[in-house]
Amino acid sequence: MTRKLHLNAFLMGVGHHEAAWRHPRTEPARLTDVRHYQELARIAERGKLDSVFLADGVALHGDFQSGRVRHALRHNALGGLEPLTLLSALAAVTDHIGLIATVSTTYNEPFHVARKFASLDHISGGRAGWNIVTSAGEAEARNFGVVRPSHADRYARATEFLDVVRKLWDSWEDDAILRDRTGGLYADTGKIHAIEHAGEYFAVSGPLNTSRSPQGHPLLVQAGSSEDGKEFAARYAEAVFTAQQTLEEGQEFYADLKRRLAAYGRRHEDVLVLPGISPIIGSTEREALRLEQELEDLIIPAYGLAQLSQMTGIELTEDALDRPLPEVSVETEGAQSRRKLVIDLARREGLTVRQLLGRLAGGRGHRVLAGTPEQIADQLQEWFFAGAADGFNIMPPILPGGLSDFVDHVVPELQVRGLFRYDYEGRTLRENYGLPRPASRYAGARREEVAVAR
Amino acid sequence: MTRKLHLNAFLMGVGHHEAAWRHPRTEPARLTDVRHYQELARIAERGKLDSVFLADGVALHGDFQSGRVRHALRHNALGGLEPLTLLSALAAVTDHIGLIATVSTTYNEPFHVARKFASLDHISGGRAGWNIVTSAGEAEARNFGVVRPSHADRYARATEFLDVVRKLWDSWEDDAILRDRTGGLYADTGKIHAIEHAGEYFAVSGPLNTSRSPQGHPLLVQAGSSEDGKEFAARYAEAVFTAQQTLEEGQEFYADLKRRLAAYGRRHEDVLVLPGISPIIGSTEREALRLEQELEDLIIPAYGLAQLSQMTGIELTEDALDRPLPEVSVETEGAQSRRKLVIDLARREGLTVRQLLGRLAGGRGHRVLAGTPEQIADQLQEWFFAGAADGFNIMPPILPGGLSDFVDHVVPELQVRGLFRYDYEGRTLRENYGLPRPASRYAGARREEVAVAR
Ligand SMILES: Cc1cc2nc3c(=O)[nH]c(=O)nc-3n(C[C@H](O)[C@H](O)[C@H](O)COP(=O)(O)O)c2cc1C
Ligand SMILES: Cc1cc2nc3c(=O)[nH]c(=O)nc-3n(C[C@H](O)[C@H](O)[C@H](O)COP(=O)(O)O)c2cc1C
Repeated sequence: MTRKLHLNAFLMGVGHHEAAWRHPRTEPARLTDVRHYQELARIAERGKLDSVFLADGVALHGDFQSGRVRHALRHNALGGLEPLTLLSALAAVTDHIGLIATVSTTYNEPFHVARKFASLDHISGGRAGWNIVTSAGEAEARNFGVVRPSHADRYARATEFLDVVRKLWDSWEDDAILRDRTGGLYADTGKIHAIEHAGEYFAVSGPLNTSRSPQGHPLLVQAGSSEDGKEFAARYAEAVFTAQQTLEEGQEFYADLKRRLAAYGRRHEDVLVLPGISPIIGSTEREALRLEQELEDLIIPAYGLAQLSQMTGIELTEDALDRPLPEVSVETEGAQSRRKLVIDLARREGLTVRQLLGRLAGGRGHRVLAGTPEQIADQLQEWFFAGAADGFNIMPPILPGGLSDFVDHVVPELQVRGLFRYDYEGRTLRENYGLPRPASRYAGARREEVAVAR
Repeated sequence: MTRKLHLNAFLMGVGHHEAAWRHPRTEPARLTDVRHYQELARIAERGKLDSVFLADGVALHGDFQSGRVRHALRHNALGGLEPLTLLSALAAVTDHIGLIATVSTTYNEPFHVARKFASLDHISGGRAGWNIVTSAGEAEARNFGVVRPSHADRYARATEFLDVVRKLWDSWEDDAILRDRTGGLYADTGKIHAIEHAGEYFAVSGPLNTSRSPQGHPLLVQAGSSEDGKEFAARYAEAVFTAQQTLEEGQEFYADLKRRLAAYGRRHEDVLVLPGISPIIGSTEREALRLEQELEDLIIPAYGLAQLSQMTGIELTEDALDRPLPEVSVETEGAQSRRKLVIDLARREGLTVRQLLGRLAGGRGHRVLAGTPEQIADQLQEWFFAGAADGFNIMPPILPGGLSDFVDHVVPELQVRGLFRYDYEGRTLRENYGLPRPASRYAGARREEVAVAR
């Protein structure tokens, strides 16, 4: 079998472009309408994509206590749905597509997270995936009564969190359920295991009270690209979403991540690297560029400036718009890789702040590509063969239009080139991603049952 | 308009009877099959019931470290789905029925809970309800690295938890969203409010990052009947599930709860009291009694004994089966009202432990009623008119059969008697329960915007 691309549709309200909600091809009232997302999932499934993915944060973006941020936020689509509740509703109207939700390890409990994903995996027949994030924002901490933990501390907690969650997913062996009606034995509780985890961050007895799900472990996805983030990904992730602007950076990231795997006893093919790409599609290049321009004309700089100020840690006002980005350090307790990417982009291309805002509005740091379906397929193909990607995280600028354009025009082009499937090969998300189903670590380790009198 | 009954279908795996999974009319393999629950929700909707309800706990029932409990648990159906993920999948295939999920205030964060219910309320078009529990079990605490807080402490936390959640639900005024495309104003952030809650248990800044949902506040349901539980219900609950064995007890509970409302500025009709009932339905009384007997014959006493030992705090062995329940105090840090109910039941009717197990197996302390549709309707009617109930929490012994029997035979009987609706009157769960939609506490309290230079 030749190597094939894997494609994930990153769903985001009515589109990834900051100004999508103002564009005539979107309907912003659908931001909290489940049917909108159901339609998107069905379009992605029609295109045989591997999965849909929902990002998440646990605060309104940015510091709501700041009058400036509050003022700037007025210009952006706000207040969408929570990913896990939404994905169950998408599971109910689809059959094949993977369903990946973002959940933070910083403000959650492993028992709840393990259980909700196991439940979604049952509900979807083995299509659940978890995008593991550590919540880089300061506003998020304030919704949980704490000061934001340091970057290192967040990743240390995430590492132990994953250890606990995976134990809980293993706590029921595959054959623990007997359903012996005549004998009155529903389960063999010798094959259901307390995990008795006691660590630095968590003490969890287990077992889980949801039985082992179709995938054993829902798929693990990760999206932080700092040093700690990459190490975490090498240890646990099976798919990595990443923002890479140039082929060289993409190749470097790809090689770097794959190189780290061996230390955890993992192989090259155990992790898929999926850079983000925002395809602005037209039937001619001119039409694509026109759409790009339409969106750019709808940008309100105050919003982007407030976001950029927050990301870089420097106060940027409208006076700064036509000057280069001021000097700034990459170090932060927030999201390190995002900050570095933005600073590098401005430096490399010598962008003014206004130009930088234009570039970020399209894909928030992800690569934006305007062109015909063939031109876009060319780019995906190039990265795929040049060792920069195992597939892509597709971020349509407007939704649903940008996704149906991709599915109806780019996907067939990729199929004809032999780069993408004509139909689903597997039943589960893991199977479609070509990843193995983990065995329970407790399998065979039968607990010595205490002799029970009665 | 004459007063009508409200009916909630309490869904529980393949039935409420402890031995339901062994009965030939159930399919225990459907315990984690979403289609089973979707079918149940559709049956309830066909019967015009107000809502379906899912119970929950955050541990396998009972102390898994005890060999005895582990051994006993083998006989019971275990390891179902998590309610919130499941209800979204039910929302997707129904249009009218209310969707009530149990979530604990003891091991959760108000921000997450507020957001998930707001999200479910959007997804279902205003049909979400929250059964608020405080997690009485000791095993639950061990999944969150803590010692179980005292009964009083759990209710104190629950009270503040509700204060925070309701503030978060109010944090977006109804008209905060503008969607002014031309002006580029998505929202009026002066109508989105930080809540800045700082209390004994929680510090939460807000606002919520999900916009105000169709019901404003998802419906609040409560099910604890201790002193603290009733006080909590009087303060916050809009529907109360309760287990009452006799008409006199039912009347007393009903009057007691309604009497407490005034202290919180609430009226008699602001809360619906819904006692649980497990109807064992036959087309003749004999057929009903036969079904009851079939189920009783499938009980495995070891399981009930272990549960009863845990509930009462006394070790009960098989030797105790044919003797009366030993003396035991009602005081506990666990679930007080459940314990009291069980002890009272045994005393009042002079039951042996074996007889008590039989009574508990049917409804776990709820009233079990075997009879024809007319006999069951008579009982519901009697309680309804005698001031013991505003409606009922229907707990079918076997599922789906017990629910479809209720919907197809008892519901028409109630309709003919003018006691139950022929069709949904409202769009939302609140409207069907006849309860008002709360206004945002912040409405009108426009935040003084700081002049923003930028
Ligand atoms: C494609 C992509 C999607 C992301 N989605 C989220 C998200 O939904 N929520 C979030 O808190 N962070 C998200 N992030 C950020 C990271 O996951 C990570 O939490 C953050 O960048 C901090 O990690 P780092 O310092 O290792 O980069 C995303 C990043 C990428 C590249
Ligand atoms: C109909 C009914 C359903 C209940 N469902 C749950 C449940 O799903 N989860 C739970 O932890 N407790 C449940 N309970 C128990 C109570 O909600 C409460 O948490 C417990 O009884 C302790 O409160 P108390 O001491 O005030 O009675 C239920 C009780 C009743 C009557």
